[in-house]
Amino acid sequence: MRALVLDPDRTARHGPQVLADHPEPRRSAGEALVRMRVAGVCDTDLQLARGYMSYAGVLGHEFVGEVLEADDSAWVGCRVVADINAGCGKCRDCTERDGHHCQERSVLGILKRDGAFAERLVVPQRNLVRVPDGVPDDAAVFAEPLAAALHVLDEAIAGRSAVVIGDGKLGQLILRALHGSGVRVTLVGHHQDKLDLARAIGAEAFLEAELPKDLRVPLVVEASGSKTGLERAFSLLEPRGTVVLKTTVADRIELDFATVVINELRIVGSRCGDMQRAIEMLDSDRLDPTPLIQARYDLLNADEALRRAGRPGTLKVLVDNPS
Amino acid sequence: MRALVLDPDRTARHGPQVLADHPEPRRSAGEALVRMRVAGVCDTDLQLARGYMSYAGVLGHEFVGEVLEADDSAWVGCRVVADINAGCGKCRDCTERDGHHCQERSVLGILKRDGAFAERLVVPQRNLVRVPDGVPDDAAVFAEPLAAALHVLDEAIAGRSAVVIGDGKLGQLILRALHGSGVRVTLVGHHQDKLDLARAIGAEAFLEAELPKDLRVPLVVEASGSKTGLERAFSLLEPRGTVVLKTTVADRIELDFATVVINELRIVGSRCGDMQRAIEMLDSDRLDPTPLIQARYDLLNADEALRRAGRPGTLKVLVDNPS
Repeated sequence: MRALVLDPDRTARHGPQVLADHPEPRRSAGEALVRMRVAGVCDTDLQLARGYMSYAGVLGHEFVGEVLEADDSAWVGCRVVADINAGCGKCRDCTERDGHHCQERSVLGILKRDGAFAERLVVPQRNLVRVPDGVPDDAAVFAEPLAAALHVLDEAIAGRSAVVIGDGKLGQLILRALHGSGVRVTLVGHHQDKLDLARAIGAEAFLEAELPKDLRVPLVVEASGSKTGLERAFSLLEPRGTVVLKTTVADRIELDFATVVINELRIVGSRCGDMQRAIEMLDSDRLDPTPLIQARYDLLNADEALRRAGRPGTLKVLVDNPS
Repeated sequence: MRALVLDPDRTARHGPQVLADHPEPRRSAGEALVRMRVAGVCDTDLQLARGYMSYAGVLGHEFVGEVLEADDSAWVGCRVVADINAGCGKCRDCTERDGHHCQERSVLGILKRDGAFAERLVVPQRNLVRVPDGVPDDAAVFAEPLAAALHVLDEAIAGRSAVVIGDGKLGQLILRALHGSGVRVTLVGHHQDKLDLARAIGAEAFLEAELPKDLRVPLVVEASGSKTGLERAFSLLEPRGTVVLKTTVADRIELDFATVVINELRIVGSRCGDMQRAIEMLDSDRLDPTPLIQARYDLLNADEALRRAGRPGTLKVLVDNPS
């Protein structure tokens, strides 16, 4: 089958390559075989292509598909999204929580598990989340990053205010997740056209240089991935405020921790979220992610999709599987 | 009156100096005039003496004293400790919370308010906390740092486990605060004699190099003030664990924030705590801070007390006011 494959030996010279003859995935007991319908490109895909986590295999972890085979035949034919973390199912993290931190986990298209830029893929059946008929593929494909965005809400004080730093696709989605949940939210970015996307849903948006000097909020979400974003976040926080880190900046960052202690700030890392909650929000009309789609490519040209996504300022790029 | 005074012009040459003729403090409405009985030296005093916060005035913020004058005469003659943060009393932080983050605050011996290394001092009457007869001066003088130590408990999961990094006076006090509250706590340090102090109360204690390789806990308290303490803390945390920062390392620290995001860690700055809670704990027999006292000086030699406290490895140094 066709798949966009990262092979560390070849990638250094050519980047990830679309192979026509990648082996079909093999479904084990407890897993579902899924036909990919639409997949989304995430910045993590670009980082993996540059060697992050030394990943080798099929890329892609944002997708909507339909179930071809599963232990429970009730799933067959269903349109689904899936939690990307595949835990062992036995440890305390798996049994008491969501398994997102299972030591034995594989992660779709990121760690020890082939991903979604392929005609077909396998995921644990227990990870599947059904997509309601009212949610089109182009919205459902945002379920994974939206779940991560909604995870921020666990830190938000309902009805209070927040700032999102970064006007890229992650920042835009977090802005929508907070806005759709009733939090008064302000976007800070560098691109007037992207700030306009935020204003279109009724949020406030500012170029960094034009931010009101006295703006202080209890929650700042750092989604810019820049080295200066975190220090900027500190300057916007009320005492005892929280900054949520959503981006894995691979580099090390130097910070003044005296500010953290004196103002009793909180820094919270936040990764994946609850897919069910994301699908429910997409089904609720409180959030429409489709204005963030900027380009789409056939799976045959998935390598091109990655290059397009890598251009500065690009929002969401999708990959279709027409077969 | 006698007082240990930091004068930025003179201090550069001589260090803080004991003056015999420092002006008497003047009590305003709402304040209490207090005779200092015993005061403690904190590392913050040493940092202030080196220019931190550009403070000028009488040093010292850990004390137990007796009230000489107050608006409410019921306080006169009482033995007291006091919250060191003097807020405006009107802002939201003062009216809804504890005023520890009031923008207009002064802080005893640290910011815009003369401190406790003096024969007499003034503090807001509302900051006073009565010391029960069963708590001797040498225990009550620990109320302020113990309140800060107990503040860590707000992050602790009762009955769970924690690691305290740093075997100095702050780490020792936090260890006792957690231990006395039923948390299973392990101390990590560099000095065998100080680890023995921890073992004497029934806690586990290890030299950093001898720490069990697989030790992972949900809460780590960084109280070493070293640049490497925070990275060490990360390595001891379970996923979704919390590290509480208790020391204001004036330097900047460089960190790998990818770990924070992937493991969804929390970093929480923690400063002052609730003095009433500290006094109650001192009165409860669950905690005895007096084994941490290593030396004591007459107020006349308070400059010497600071030099003694500055020697590496020194635990608590007290200053007595015999007058």
